[in-house]
Amino acid sequence: MNTIEWDDDTESVKLIDQTLLPGEYRVVACRRVTELIEAIKRLRVRGAPALGAAGAYGVVLACANARDKKKLRAEVEQLKNARPTAINLSYGVIRALNAALAASTMVEMKENALEEANRIAEEDVAVNRKLGDYGSALLEDGDVVLTHCNAGRLACVDWGTALGVIRSAIAKGKRIEVIASETRPLNQGSRLTCWELNRDKIPVTLITDSMSAAVMREGKVDKVIVGADRVVREGVINKIGTYMHAVVAKAHKIPFYVAAPRSSFDTDRSYKDVVIEKRSSEELLFCAGTQIAPLDVNVYNPAFDFTPFELIEAVITETGVYKSVQNQLLIKND
Amino acid sequence: MNTIEWDDDTESVKLIDQTLLPGEYRVVACRRVTELIEAIKRLRVRGAPALGAAGAYGVVLACANARDKKKLRAEVEQLKNARPTAINLSYGVIRALNAALAASTMVEMKENALEEANRIAEEDVAVNRKLGDYGSALLEDGDVVLTHCNAGRLACVDWGTALGVIRSAIAKGKRIEVIASETRPLNQGSRLTCWELNRDKIPVTLITDSMSAAVMREGKVDKVIVGADRVVREGVINKIGTYMHAVVAKAHKIPFYVAAPRSSFDTDRSYKDVVIEKRSSEELLFCAGTQIAPLDVNVYNPAFDFTPFELIEAVITETGVYKSVQNQLLIKND
Repeated sequence: MNTIEWDDDTESVKLIDQTLLPGEYRVVACRRVTELIEAIKRLRVRGAPALGAAGAYGVVLACANARDKKKLRAEVEQLKNARPTAINLSYGVIRALNAALAASTMVEMKENALEEANRIAEEDVAVNRKLGDYGSALLEDGDVVLTHCNAGRLACVDWGTALGVIRSAIAKGKRIEVIASETRPLNQGSRLTCWELNRDKIPVTLITDSMSAAVMREGKVDKVIVGADRVVREGVINKIGTYMHAVVAKAHKIPFYVAAPRSSFDTDRSYKDVVIEKRSSEELLFCAGTQIAPLDVNVYNPAFDFTPFELIEAVITETGVYKSVQNQLLIKND
Repeated sequence: MNTIEWDDDTESVKLIDQTLLPGEYRVVACRRVTELIEAIKRLRVRGAPALGAAGAYGVVLACANARDKKKLRAEVEQLKNARPTAINLSYGVIRALNAALAASTMVEMKENALEEANRIAEEDVAVNRKLGDYGSALLEDGDVVLTHCNAGRLACVDWGTALGVIRSAIAKGKRIEVIASETRPLNQGSRLTCWELNRDKIPVTLITDSMSAAVMREGKVDKVIVGADRVVREGVINKIGTYMHAVVAKAHKIPFYVAAPRSSFDTDRSYKDVVIEKRSSEELLFCAGTQIAPLDVNVYNPAFDFTPFELIEAVITETGVYKSVQNQLLIKND
């Protein structure tokens, strides 16, 4: 199945529980908005594009369960704020909510919201395919691509953004190998990227995040491609560590690409105005339940960082590759 | 107790088992060279200066247990090669072995080796104090210092190299705060550095390795100080990730220092001629016994990387601060 889907029989949102991978593949069903919010906060579903679909399907759940519009709006507001940094969550919520509010009865509202949510999910796959097509032209046969976190099928409804570019290049007959950085503290790189690339038999080598510069120095990396949680006026907000990879790529003259759908764009806004989610210190104090630091140590745990356009060779989208920065605006290269 | 000591009553090498920290503080006793080799390979004792003492005390064990010189030499050879990258292990072994071989009976040999091993351990503490004195002059009141891995008391017999510089600066009345990167895959930063700094009530904040560039960009870091496993002709070999921190420090114009005793110097040799230990893929596939990656994924796991002098502001030693690079030789700044 896709990363996230609507299930008509049970009137629920079904999603692959990404906290259990790679040890266990389990699909969970959320029948209430509160369950979906828990799944979003716990990162059972994560990745900016997947959160767009999750937001929209959450509105469907809200319509199916809410007694009136006031109750609906309150539930939807909580859903929209489940995580602050990726813009796609609120984008999906707002699109589905607007569709719902065009109807007058709760039944029609749910139908409208479901139609819009399915459209968002379908668009996501189509957008990733187009984005992958554009991006694949940037990769050469034999390239080794380093990626961080998981901007793959599991971060989207299907296909993926950064990994979508790699899948598209491979579909065109290019031989591409991947280096995946494990992506502490939650290991989306080792747990999710390695899992989905292994499944597709795409060659992948796992490294720790800190090895990035060393493998570049050894000449092992041709390109870097990552996803984005939000593209803002001056650059890109993405998983913590993205900025480090961009700095070391620049130092080794290795092109650093961001692959993101236009729905992740929020270019009227400055990065300074985006809330960077700070997550629990427990993510660094424990690993798989075992203590790996003194429990009373001070922890700094932002989930995202900001990378300025100066370090980004191009942003790959479904409408083309945006190649250079002028007056802090990306100029599309046709 | 110190990180590693000789125990006369039991004729054994006692060491703090660093694999169990911070959850448990346990001292283990090695009565045989094979036990000490296991402790070195498993990183129960680690850190270049501590390995120097371990090597020397291992020769004492060999003298105490070997039937003849041939047997002794064979055991000592295995000990010397327990880990390949830090030069201190072989340095300690050779010094104690030479002292032993000056005697004629096995009893005298053991006494000579023990005397030399104790001298190495005492020298280590004295050297770190001197090194700390020199280094402390480079730190200003109020500095925040980022460090990687553990170049502290636990990496030495006592006091520490990188953390020794910080301890010396604090002893002189300067207020210093530390940012510790967790140091994947074995988390010496979160497990050991945070533990020993917490014990000494030195303020420390834990981050993931990948956050280094982001905290520098946020203006949170004044200096970086790390240890060294080996100082070679063109730069420094140290824990994997050191090179990444050096590259991002340079990009943010933050001074990057290496603190290392002269016993870690091997400046006749090129980094190309030093074996970089590749450790088991299990270190990345499992965290505290729980699977965090597909078991059949390819893993690249070098334990060390190389940082050229171009990225190093100075090397702090017990004979002074070596400040600039000319013809690939460090020039001492008096």
